[in-house]
Amino acid sequence: MQGAVLHGPRDVRYEDRAEPTIVEPTDALISLSATCICGSDLWPYRGFNPVTAPAPMGHEYCGIVEDVGRDVRSIRRGQFVVGSFFASDNTCPHCHAGFQTSCQHRQPVVGAQAPRLRVPLADGTLVPTDDVPHADVVPSMLALSDVMGTGWFAADAANVRPGATVVVVGDGAVGLLAALSAKQLGAARIIVMSRHDSRQRLAREFGATDIVAERGDEGVERIKELTRGVGADSVLECVGTQESMMQAISSTRPGGSVAYVGVPHGVSLDGADLFFRHVRLFGGPAPVRRYLPRLIDLVLNGTINPGKVFDLTLPLASVAEGYRAMDERRAIKTMLRVA
Amino acid sequence: MQGAVLHGPRDVRYEDRAEPTIVEPTDALISLSATCICGSDLWPYRGFNPVTAPAPMGHEYCGIVEDVGRDVRSIRRGQFVVGSFFASDNTCPHCHAGFQTSCQHRQPVVGAQAPRLRVPLADGTLVPTDDVPHADVVPSMLALSDVMGTGWFAADAANVRPGATVVVVGDGAVGLLAALSAKQLGAARIIVMSRHDSRQRLAREFGATDIVAERGDEGVERIKELTRGVGADSVLECVGTQESMMQAISSTRPGGSVAYVGVPHGVSLDGADLFFRHVRLFGGPAPVRRYLPRLIDLVLNGTINPGKVFDLTLPLASVAEGYRAMDERRAIKTMLRVA
Repeated sequence: MQGAVLHGPRDVRYEDRAEPTIVEPTDALISLSATCICGSDLWPYRGFNPVTAPAPMGHEYCGIVEDVGRDVRSIRRGQFVVGSFFASDNTCPHCHAGFQTSCQHRQPVVGAQAPRLRVPLADGTLVPTDDVPHADVVPSMLALSDVMGTGWFAADAANVRPGATVVVVGDGAVGLLAALSAKQLGAARIIVMSRHDSRQRLAREFGATDIVAERGDEGVERIKELTRGVGADSVLECVGTQESMMQAISSTRPGGSVAYVGVPHGVSLDGADLFFRHVRLFGGPAPVRRYLPRLIDLVLNGTINPGKVFDLTLPLASVAEGYRAMDERRAIKTMLRVA
Repeated sequence: MQGAVLHGPRDVRYEDRAEPTIVEPTDALISLSATCICGSDLWPYRGFNPVTAPAPMGHEYCGIVEDVGRDVRSIRRGQFVVGSFFASDNTCPHCHAGFQTSCQHRQPVVGAQAPRLRVPLADGTLVPTDDVPHADVVPSMLALSDVMGTGWFAADAANVRPGATVVVVGDGAVGLLAALSAKQLGAARIIVMSRHDSRQRLAREFGATDIVAERGDEGVERIKELTRGVGADSVLECVGTQESMMQAISSTRPGGSVAYVGVPHGVSLDGADLFFRHVRLFGGPAPVRRYLPRLIDLVLNGTINPGKVFDLTLPLASVAEGYRAMDERRAIKTMLRVA
């Protein structure tokens, strides 16, 4: 088969890759309904993470089960499934506590920008739907695999409560879906920091009540003005840079919460500064698996439509253009057609 | 009057100081029943915080109200009161949210190692008892002013729940009282990291179920062994150094909580490391004022006896020896007799 392989900075190729097979008896093979490019794929694409060997790309997926290993019990051939970017057994103490992305046996899912994918620990990782859903909802199902679950985790980890004032730092797909999640959790005011027209529009559609275009200290000043000098109850940091993290922490009221869900790159926090800001901090790889059953329901009953973050759809063969469009911020998120 | 003044590293003197007076109409003047030395006083004493001018020392206090300013409404002459080390109006949004140590009008209380003390914002800061309590409970009342309230905040901020496994890093007065607080909040297992006999004994008396003498990586290994490789639900960091903070973070299970209540000195946290550890982090100056009514009740009805952390009592005139004993870890905490 052919799929996406990263060879070096800004060098993604659509080329021959080994056909995935059942390796462990707990594996499943999935025929993907669609796949996509993640904001986090841009870190190695831009050279921030070194690429030492050609790397099959992609970790977001949904599709039809083609085959399962002999120890797989709950997943069957022909089912439509969604899974997380980390495979998890869903039975260890960390999984039971709801942190499947820290599963004691977790494994990354890699190579999803392709027609077919091997998913380890299928029973613990994949969530099947009762029926194969209509093609219309495939984009939203695909979004659940990472960005929607990550946005939801941001809102959950920042303790968003009914009536809360929420700030979202970052207007990428995760930030926009974090706003949608805050809305679902009952936030009264959702301030999204964005300076891009198309993203501002989608943010408002997802529930944003205010948009702040200023950044850094000016951005913090603006948040303080909008909250009568108090700061926000919950701030969802969806970028992962030093500037975005400090903007998030500085926008939070004492006793309020910051969640950070983008892998931090070069972020360092001063203990004494954090201490006197009196801010709760929680983040990490989103335990998407925990949220999947609820989020699948919300998609299937039409409550949420996270697939709207895909504003560019290309054939898988054009994956390189998909990366370029996101790198240049011409696209929020690129979906790749497999068939 | 005479009181404690820090002139430089390890140079505390008992000497003449200006008599405190009502400066603002919201002030109260307190005649102290007793005062004491805080672990945090050792930072400037040891030269970690620069001393640029002679500094009146002490911020823990309880005693009898001698006088109040003309705008004070709820506090009256003759009442026995306890207050926090930060004065707060208890009416601003941060106070209403329970974070009085981040009050929009907060002021430090300084100079409590003396017979008399000016307390700003008396109505918001001081909590009176119905009657003047017996001298026997004065040590415990004094402990509420900082160390007991700080230990309680550690347990609260680390989300200690009934049945939880808790680790306490630090066997100073705050660490020991954090163990007592975890016990009150229903923790099933309380592991205190300590290598000092007398502190271990008091830790067990306060509720510790296990003592770990190892530190650093070995200490973390030991915690992992004691928790079947999972880590603790809640870790209470009561020291404030890089080593203690990393020990705390590394001992916590994914999804678990670290509270840090000692002012961090030279602590720096790597964002990516924290991200993949999946740990909740919350700390800051303990909002003692929020807890005072509940803690006063627990002392007066005999449920807790935090005054036991005072294992050395000296006359105020011997304050310099009190500092030395704590600096050399001969004493956990020194109480100073005023009369």
